[in-house]
Order: sequence, then C-alpha cells, then structure tokens
Amino acid sequence: MSEQPPGWTLDPDRALPAEPGVRALAREIYAATSRLPIVSMHGHVEVDLLVQDSAFENPAELFVIPDHYLVRMLVSQGESPADLGIPTHDGTPFETDPREIWRRFCRNWKLFRGTPTRYWLEHELAVVFGAPVPPSEEAADELYDFLLDTLSREEFRPRALLDAFNVELLATTDSAASTLTGHRKLAETDGRQRVLPTFRPDDLLHIRRPGWAADIRELSEVSGIEAGDFDSFLAALRGRRAAFLQAGARATDHGHLSADTTPLDPADAREIYAAGLRGEASPAQADAFAGGMLFEMARMSAEDGLVMQLHPGVLRNHHRGIRTRYGTDQGFDIPVRVEFTRALQPLLNSFGMDPAFRMVVFTTDETVYSRELAPLAGAYPGLRLGAPWWFLDSPEQMRRFRESAVETAGFYNTSGFVDDTRALASIPARHDLARRIDAGFLARLVAEGKLGLDEAVETGADLAYHLPLQSYAPRS
Amino acid sequence: MSEQPPGWTLDPDRALPAEPGVRALAREIYAATSRLPIVSMHGHVEVDLLVQDSAFENPAELFVIPDHYLVRMLVSQGESPADLGIPTHDGTPFETDPREIWRRFCRNWKLFRGTPTRYWLEHELAVVFGAPVPPSEEAADELYDFLLDTLSREEFRPRALLDAFNVELLATTDSAASTLTGHRKLAETDGRQRVLPTFRPDDLLHIRRPGWAADIRELSEVSGIEAGDFDSFLAALRGRRAAFLQAGARATDHGHLSADTTPLDPADAREIYAAGLRGEASPAQADAFAGGMLFEMARMSAEDGLVMQLHPGVLRNHHRGIRTRYGTDQGFDIPVRVEFTRALQPLLNSFGMDPAFRMVVFTTDETVYSRELAPLAGAYPGLRLGAPWWFLDSPEQMRRFRESAVETAGFYNTSGFVDDTRALASIPARHDLARRIDAGFLARLVAEGKLGLDEAVETGADLAYHLPLQSYAPRS
Amino acid sequence: MSEQPPGWTLDPDRALPAEPGVRALAREIYAATSRLPIVSMHGHVEVDLLVQDSAFENPAELFVIPDHYLVRMLVSQGESPADLGIPTHDGTPFETDPREIWRRFCRNWKLFRGTPTRYWLEHELAVVFGAPVPPSEEAADELYDFLLDTLSREEFRPRALLDAFNVELLATTDSAASTLTGHRKLAETDGRQRVLPTFRPDDLLHIRRPGWAADIRELSEVSGIEAGDFDSFLAALRGRRAAFLQAGARATDHGHLSADTTPLDPADAREIYAAGLRGEASPAQADAFAGGMLFEMARMSAEDGLVMQLHPGVLRNHHRGIRTRYGTDQGFDIPVRVEFTRALQPLLNSFGMDPAFRMVVFTTDETVYSRELAPLAGAYPGLRLGAPWWFLDSPEQMRRFRESAVETAGFYNTSGFVDDTRALASIPARHDLARRIDAGFLARLVAEGKLGLDEAVETGADLAYHLPLQSYAPRS
Repeated sequence: MSEQPPGWTLDPDRALPAEPGVRALAREIYAATSRLPIVSMHGHVEVDLLVQDSAFENPAELFVIPDHYLVRMLVSQGESPADLGIPTHDGTPFETDPREIWRRFCRNWKLFRGTPTRYWLEHELAVVFGAPVPPSEEAADELYDFLLDTLSREEFRPRALLDAFNVELLATTDSAASTLTGHRKLAETDGRQRVLPTFRPDDLLHIRRPGWAADIRELSEVSGIEAGDFDSFLAALRGRRAAFLQAGARATDHGHLSADTTPLDPADAREIYAAGLRGEASPAQADAFAGGMLFEMARMSAEDGLVMQLHPGVLRNHHRGIRTRYGTDQGFDIPVRVEFTRALQPLLNSFGMDPAFRMVVFTTDETVYSRELAPLAGAYPGLRLGAPWWFLDSPEQMRRFRESAVETAGFYNTSGFVDDTRALASIPARHDLARRIDAGFLARLVAEGKLGLDEAVETGADLAYHLPLQSYAPRS
Repeated sequence: MSEQPPGWTLDPDRALPAEPGVRALAREIYAATSRLPIVSMHGHVEVDLLVQDSAFENPAELFVIPDHYLVRMLVSQGESPADLGIPTHDGTPFETDPREIWRRFCRNWKLFRGTPTRYWLEHELAVVFGAPVPPSEEAADELYDFLLDTLSREEFRPRALLDAFNVELLATTDSAASTLTGHRKLAETDGRQRVLPTFRPDDLLHIRRPGWAADIRELSEVSGIEAGDFDSFLAALRGRRAAFLQAGARATDHGHLSADTTPLDPADAREIYAAGLRGEASPAQADAFAGGMLFEMARMSAEDGLVMQLHPGVLRNHHRGIRTRYGTDQGFDIPVRVEFTRALQPLLNSFGMDPAFRMVVFTTDETVYSRELAPLAGAYPGLRLGAPWWFLDSPEQMRRFRESAVETAGFYNTSGFVDDTRALASIPARHDLARRIDAGFLARLVAEGKLGLDEAVETGADLAYHLPLQSYAPRS
Repeated sequence: MSEQPPGWTLDPDRALPAEPGVRALAREIYAATSRLPIVSMHGHVEVDLLVQDSAFENPAELFVIPDHYLVRMLVSQGESPADLGIPTHDGTPFETDPREIWRRFCRNWKLFRGTPTRYWLEHELAVVFGAPVPPSEEAADELYDFLLDTLSREEFRPRALLDAFNVELLATTDSAASTLTGHRKLAETDGRQRVLPTFRPDDLLHIRRPGWAADIRELSEVSGIEAGDFDSFLAALRGRRAAFLQAGARATDHGHLSADTTPLDPADAREIYAAGLRGEASPAQADAFAGGMLFEMARMSAEDGLVMQLHPGVLRNHHRGIRTRYGTDQGFDIPVRVEFTRALQPLLNSFGMDPAFRMVVFTTDETVYSRELAPLAGAYPGLRLGAPWWFLDSPEQMRRFRESAVETAGFYNTSGFVDDTRALASIPARHDLARRIDAGFLARLVAEGKLGLDEAVETGADLAYHLPLQSYAPRS
C-alpha cells in the first residue's frame, strides 16, 4: 500500500472512542489486531476479477458504478442512476464518460457525511491508493488523473492488492450451477486454496421465480443428474455441494425473505416440485417449499460439514421501475421485520445440538439481536450469531451489536467479522473499521473494570482473526 | 427574553456531551447554530392565539392545563385530571382556581426528573420568563405571583414572543374545512406569510368516524363543491388544497393508524364512499378507504407540490373513561408497532422517484429507523425521514435517532427538527434542545475522526435551519 | 462477608462510567446507595433452603448446576449438560463428581467475558466468599478446596448470608397450591415476615397443560374448595390468595406467552373450564382462557391489593430433546416479540385508573420500552414498568432501559430493581450491579446539566430502596 502523501492524512485514531482513557486502551488493543491477516469468509468479489488480474480501468468503474451504497445515496438526492453510469436494460441512454461520472460523485461528497461509505472511501483513497486530497467539486479532475495513473501500475492489480491486503482466505459467492473453473485455475496459480467458493442455491429454491425452470436445467447439466423430480433434485444439489467442497468451499449462503425452516413431508415436497416444473405452483406452495428446502439444506450441512449461512428479511427490488430499467442490486432492497425464535425452531430441534452442524445467522433487523438471536446463539452449539452486515456494518451499528449481543451470547458465539463486499479495494477498509470498533468496545469493558487488558487483547485477536477461521472451519 | 436573575441560572452547557474534549467541540458547533432563526414547519399553535394576541391569563393556563405531557405524568402518579383543571364533559366538577392547579404541579416537580418536560419547562421558566427559582412546593406561590406579573407585560404577548424567539416561519395544523381567515388576517398584519397553515384532512378520510358525515357537509360548504360522491369529494379536497396553498401552506399532515397506501380501484372507492354516506361502510372498507386516500393525497401532492407528512402508529384514546370524561388528547394516545417497507411500497412506486413529490415520514416506533425508514429515505428522492417527535423528541431519543438513521440515510435525507408543539412558549426550548443534541452528535463524529470541524459546523447549521426550509420548500 | 485477600481484588469503580468527571459523580451517588438494605421483591430462592439452613455442599452445587445462565453458555460451546452435572430424566448417565464439574466450568471461564454471569460470579467469589483467585484451568482445584472449606463455615449458611447481605425483604415464588408451611415456620423463627411468598398460579391457568387436572385437584385439596366448575375455581383461587396475603405475600406473578387480557364472558369461561376438565379444550379455547384469567386476576388484585406482576413473551423449552432429557429451565427458553398496547387495553380500561390496583409489567423484548411500556406506565396510575430482568438484567441493558424508559415514564413509574434469582449468593451481586448502573446513569444526567447532584442522590436511593418498597406496598 502507498505511503500517504502529506496532503491528506487520516486520523490514526479514527473510529476509536473519544474519551482519552478509553482511547489509550483501545489503541493498545487495536495495535494487537490491526496487522493480523484478513480472513474474509463472506463476500461478493467475482473470482474472474482475480483470474484475469487486469488493471482497474478508471475511478468510476472501480469506485462508483458497482457500489450500490454510493449510487443509491446520490439517487436519493435527485441524481439519476443513468447519469452515474448505471447501464440501462430498456434502451434509455446512460453516461459512459467515466470522468463525468466521477465529477458527479465528487461534487456530492458532502452527502456521505456520517456514513460508512465515506469512511471506507477515505480509507481506500488515502490509505490504499495514496490519493493526495479528498473528493470535492474542485479536486475532481486532479483526483481522477491521479487515480487513473495509480490504477495502471502493476502493484494495484487485483491479485497484487490481495497480497498487499494480507488476505489469508477470501470466500466468493457462487450459484449452485457454477462450474468453479475460476476457483480451480486460481488455486493452481496460487498453489493453494486461498479463494474459496460459497454454495448459494437461492435461485433453485424459489420455484415461482421467473427463470427457475431454466436454472433447474442448468443444474441438471452441470451436476450430470437430471433433476426431473424432487429426489433427483436433492441428489443434484448434493452433487454440487460435493463439487464445491472439493474446490475448497466452507459454507453455503441462503438469502430468503423469511427465516421459516418448517420441513415438508416428502410426498408434499415431491408434489410441489412437480407443480413447479409444470409452472403451476401456488405462492403458498412456493413459500412452503423455500422453508422446507432450508431444512433440507441443514440436513445436508449436518452430513457434509458445509457451514450454513442464513440472512432473511430483505424485500428485494422495492421500486419496480428501477428494477425494470437497471436490474437488481441497485440499492432498492429494503429490510422488513423478521422473526427467528419460532422460524428456526424446526431446524434447531433437528440439528442445533448436532456437533457436525453449524449455522451462522445474519440479520438486517437489529431488534432481534438481544431478543432472539443472542439467546438462541447463547444456547445452541450449532448456531453462531453472524457479524452485523449490510446496513448494519457501520460504526454505530457494530458498536450496538456488541452492546446488544455479547452479554447474552458471549463473544465466542459470534462469527467474527465478514465484509460482504463486491469491492475488492474496500476489503481492508471494512476489516480495519470492524477491528477499531471492537477495540473500542473491549477498551470500555477494561475501563469499566469488567475485563483485564490482557483478556481484551486476546479477545480482540479472536474476533479479528481466530473466530472467523474457527466459525467457518470444516465440520470434519 | 429576560435576563436570568442570579437566583436561577441554567447550565450553559446543558445537554452537551459530558466528555471535556467532545464538549469543547460541541460548544463550538452549537455556538454556530444557537442563534439561527427558527423554522417551525410542524406544530399545533392555534392561529387565533396570534391573531388575538392577548396576554396569557395565568401560569396554570399557560403551562399546566394544555400540556398533556405534563398532565399525564401527574395522572400516572395518582392525581386526577379534574384536579389539574382539565375541563370535564360529563358534569364532574373540576378545579378552576389556577393557583391551586399551579401548586399541585409544583409539589410534583420531582416526577419530571429525567424527562424532556422538565428540560423544556426549565428553559421556558428560567430563560424565556426569567423565573427566579425552579418549581417546588415551597416556591409555588412566589413563582405564581412572579409569572402572573410577567405574563401581563406587553413583551410577553404571543406575537412579541414570536419575534423574540426569532421565528422565521411557523406552521400551524388546520382542518381541511378551515376557512383560513386567521392566517389571512395575520399575513396582512405582518405584511408577509410567516404563519402558514397545514392541510390536515384526517377527519374526512376515516369514513366510520362519528361526525364524518357532518364534516363532509362542512367541506362541501367551505369548498363550494357538493361532495355527494367520491369524484366531487376529491374535487372538494383539491379545492381546499388550492386555498391552503394560497394562504401559504407548504404541507399536508396525515395521522393514520397504519401506513398502508394501497390504492383503491376507482369503482371501489366510489362504492365505499357512497356506503360511508349511507352510514353502512364496514370496518374493512373504512381501512381500505383510509389507505387508498393516502395514495390519492400523494397523487395530489405530486400535482400541487404540497409536502406530504405522514405519522402512523398511535392508538388514540387508550382509556375509554378518560376519553368520555375529558375528551381527546389527554396523554392516553399510545404507540403501536408499525410497518413501513411494504405499506409505503404502492405510494413510493408511483411517486417516490417523481421530482415533483416529497413526503416526510414520522414515527413513534424507534425500531423502524435503522430497519425501514433510513433505507427507504436513503434510496427514494421523494422521501425524507422526519425528525424524532412525540415521545421521541427527547435528548436520548434524538441522539439515538442520529445514531440509527444517519449512517444509512445520511444527514441530508432527514427533514430537520420540527417541534410539534401546541405551547408557544416551548418553541425555543425545543429547538434549542435539538440543536444541542445535534451539536453533541456532530462533535463526537469530529472527535472520532469521522468529520472535519468545518464540516460539522456547516452540517449543524443545515440541520438547524437550512434543511427544514429546504425539506418543506414548495415543489415547483 | 469476607475481606478480600490481596490476591484478587475487584475494581471498586467497576461498572461505573469510564469518563473521569462522570465517574466522580457516579461514585458519590453510588456511595449513598451501596449500603442501603436489599428489598428483593421478585425472586426464586426456595423457602426450604432458608428453613433448613444447611451448609451448601460444594462449589458445583452452589455455583454451576442450578445456574442455567452458566450452564447454557457452556452448552452453547459444546459441553453436554450431563457432563455439567445436570440430572437426566431418561436414564442417561450424568456427572456426579462435583470437583470434575467445577473443573469443566473453570477451564471455560473465558466464555463468560463480557457477560453479567462473569460479573456476578466475580462478585460472589471475591466479595462474598473471599476467593483468592479467579477461575481458570490452573486454579480450579485450589479454588474448589478454598470454597469447600469456606462453605462449611457457620457464617456462610443461608440465613447468615441473608443477614450479611442486609436483606430487608425477600420474596419467593410459590405455586398457588403451596401450603406456605415454610414461610410460616421462617416467620416464627425470624419473629417477623421477612421472607414473603408470591402467588404464581400459571399452571392452573393453562388448561391444556399436561398435569392441569392433577393441579386442579391439588388446588381443591389445599383450598378446601372443590374446584369442580369455573365459579368454585375462582373461589378456590380467592381462598389461596387470602392465605398468601396472610403469610405476608405482596404480589402475584404471571408468566404467559402473550399479554392478552381480553375478559371472557362468564358463560364461555364456564364452558371452557368444563371442557378443560374433560380434557377437550381446544388450543384456541386454552388461549382465550389464559387471557381471560389474567383479567380475572386483575379483578382480584383490585379487590385484595396483591400487586399483579406480568411477564409475557418467552417461548419455553425451545429444544424438545433438552426438555425430555433434562426437564424445564435449562436455558432454552427464548424470547419472542410481544405486544402490550392492545393486549393490556381491556385490563387497563377496567382497572388501570383504580387506586386499589397495581400492576408491574416485565419484558424480555427491549423494543417495547420506549414504544409501548413507558407511554403506558407514564399515563396509567395502576401500571409500573418493571426493572429490566432475564436477558436484560445486564449492564448495557440496564443502562439502555433507563435511556429508553425514563424520558417518557419518569423514574417514579418504574418499579425498582428485582433480582429474579434462584441463587441466594448472587443477590447482593445483582443489586450492587443495578445500583452502579443507575448511579452511572444519574451521574450522566448531572454532568449534562439535567439534574442536580442532590436530586440524583435522592433518586438513586429511591430506585435502590424506596421504590421497590413502595411499588409492592400493600394496596390498602
């Protein structure tokens, strides 16, 4: 990583508590965690980015266009996605001049005050790329030219960055039908499995989704098992899980609207699956199938040892017009209230005490930490409470997560930080921020006489490094 | 405003953070906002108070009887509303001696420890009226006499107070059938539209409410449009909105139980409206009508530019006996859980991306800030997140609002403070408290290296002054 | 209590705020409350423990086996309850060597970092029993031997501890059919009613519960009223309440799944009761009966003055296998979302304004404090907001409780701390922690200019001592 030029230096104590006594303790804890390797067990970097290892094209392509946190904030204040370079699906013209896109972002820098996007971008620009000044209308062109030049250098190619960031493990997220060619190639080049696929079968489990039948056909092809009925569907899924395991996968990932895990009677499952293939499944059948399949996924996890990640409670594509014009993942996925205590009961009754099973649960609804998830994770050995993520991966929320969850679940039933990012360059920024917030939380425990400093330092290292490794360790 | 006598001086740093470093920063930010004009875009001061401009009669009439925050607290500890001077509707005798009422309040001063009511009253008594001592059983009479004398002076008449408070704009809340005579008179006297009506059609949108038919007749009269069917009802509402706009209105106000905004098929709407006029609408029809009318109100806002304010989730008149004896607004309106993500989807799909439309949403359920409202306001240009209000307009809650909402919505998708008060004398106290809390929040961001002090000062002024002006600016 | 040996001294400022200025104020407030007598109005110590007054057998029997907070944490990290000495109901062997159990606990001490269990145990071990070192794998045997010796001493018998702890009142929890022999004996020995029974009729109010009919027979026997129909059932309950009152009871206790208080039509109640006796009540009937009986219990409280405690919202025995093997209360009771505003409306409409009635409501769902319970308690004289308990009786949660509830409900509509513990030795630890957290909260109010120090000291003493006495005072 570049040395910071004199023009723009970030506060070395940023995101640590303000009170001087607590800050001094936090500094000490952070010093013991800040240089630990990064174990990134849940993310959305594309493996092909690393396989191809091409230079990033320009600042707009790297920082603006793919970042829906950033784009939605500009949209919320009246910018149009098209003017920010988001490609349209309906023929509407969109901005293709990256400098123009960059200028639009820079003159709106003020909007990011108080947001984690600002925090991450400052870290990326100043620490990772050594930018001389923060974004502003005046500095937009200077910054653009500086970054354009920097991005063209060898040491800022994707794989070089991964080394510079000290990334020990990086999990990607991959459809169940993925051939995993990229992961295999990368493992050969690297001489080790450092970039691991994650098995995400969501598309296959929602039988009324447009395109479901086509996805089933793709599954059949890739798995070599014709998924013509429910039992062969399960067999095909088992086959793909085995292939993922062989390519180094440690986990599955499930993003459902609800957390329902009620098992289906096999006869009902077969009938619903057949109805799905005929395009005749009802919404109620589709919901029951999705819940029943979560139960089946848990059963398979208990068999093959893949850690099961679940994150329910987000209503996707809230605005239909945005979806139609720009596609999915445009910042219009909005959380809804979600219930876990009853929803997870079937699954936890069957697998929650099984030493071969592990589940990590994420939420975008912070109210469930103290009420539901911490009590569950503080009782079931099969359940770990996932890190605060998406909407909640910010300083205040990460602090509140610890304040809400640790007293009931303890530190050691939480999963360790996951960055959940598609932006390679933001990985160190996100882990660094989490380490600072945890250092601050631990420092307060020390200052309030609840923990020894030696214990806090050890716990800090556990949270930053050992817990993610251990939470996602193969289950035998 | 009076100078404070030596006997009772408030802490000039009150409500600023305790930590000395953060406090020093907060002082600097507060110094830059504390004297900005007051823009009060949502409140319940009666326009006639300002038109008549009579002296307030006595301390009980000014501070106790109309303040349901204050009365309910005394009631919760065993005082009866009647003994506090609340007029009864059922012939039960009630206290009419203002000195006696004032004494009851004073001897219960202890009950307000830790509440915003205490904070506001201290500000009003000490800063606005220059009271020599805080309330207590011993000082009740001294204080009463002091205030009685003070209130009789010219400079404590309502309009003089408005000037002394540096109120630039004051929005009242007015029924759709209001003739707006008071606002017109006041504008003439003032030579400008400083006191603005707000269009509140709630009574007309709930067709099973007792008195609905009479209210429809009044609407017909005032609008000159006979609201005999649904289409002429809409026309009459459009007519009143135009009259409000001409009288300076910038907004509408809607207090529904749920946030449902599902549009009604016009044929259904016509049928339900007709059933309502016949007194035959079912509860389900009434609910559907209320939700459908929110959608219609949004459509009209997109046409005429009135900002649409919505605040759902309060169950009114929880205790029937209190309602029967004392009427509405007696402190027995209790929040219920409320859902926004799905409820607002129809409205936001139709108008949320429309540059001509703006909505400000308030809540009394703090759990929706991070889960629903901040993600929505951080995406839709048509939506602003309203300030914490009613139950939530207190120091801890205003701080938590910023801690919960800003990271996702940013500062600039929030609406700026609204005081929501019927008590003229409390306006500066409430705005001052909000400015102090925001200064403290911003100071912490600076102390934690997340924001420059210059940015914090600018943001503070935006929150205190520019954002309410801009959030409620006419939409074309 | 023992003097602390030089080897292990707890921070005298533990759990006070870290900021030096606030800490100095908190110390002053805490100094005024820390030695006040303990009034423990809700707990689960068995009266027989005090009647028999035998020495505690060993550290495992005292600290590990009966503490489901502690056991569930070890279970959540892979220990089996049987290996921790939890007796099995199904013939599975379980550990009976207390030293072995103690070692398992000690080597997992790390898991309790950041939890209140650690905080309480440190206080018990270091302050109450004078242990020389904290638990660890290395010190397990040394600590075991030290405690074994200590527990055998006269001054560590249960009644001596009660004196040493300065317990002025201790409420137990007792089934409606309890004969209260123990309480009577103890009152004779003590020469006063210091240990008070609490009337808990839950088992009798849930008519589909296995064993219900047997419990009704027991009720009939103990009460001398044959509960063959609904009216005699009510008479038998009234009889037992009278017996409890005579034995010093001040309160009833109700743990339902929901807070529903809808009264039943007497004819319906009679029919459902009869169906229950025949074993034919439906789930819907059972739910309606439970809600209707809460209403009846409120009616009886308004008659006899017993304070009515309600704590809904916990789904018991989440894991069936744990329930089957180890029985109830094994840490697998998990909170669910709970609604109060509508659920309590029938009860509060009938009794909430009645000076003869008092209800204290507890929750394990912290989201209801600001939204529902504080507004209700801040209006109804018959309702007090119970202390944060179970899952919420921890430093962060107790702080958040004050931050969420006081602004709306005030201090004086909260009930004062209850320890809710079965562990006699943890009573002083829990009250001490609550007093420290309240001192810290009050100190911040002083530091932020919201309260005078004299007021804070008085309020601290009210919360620690006078409010629990007054909240549970006989109502006539």
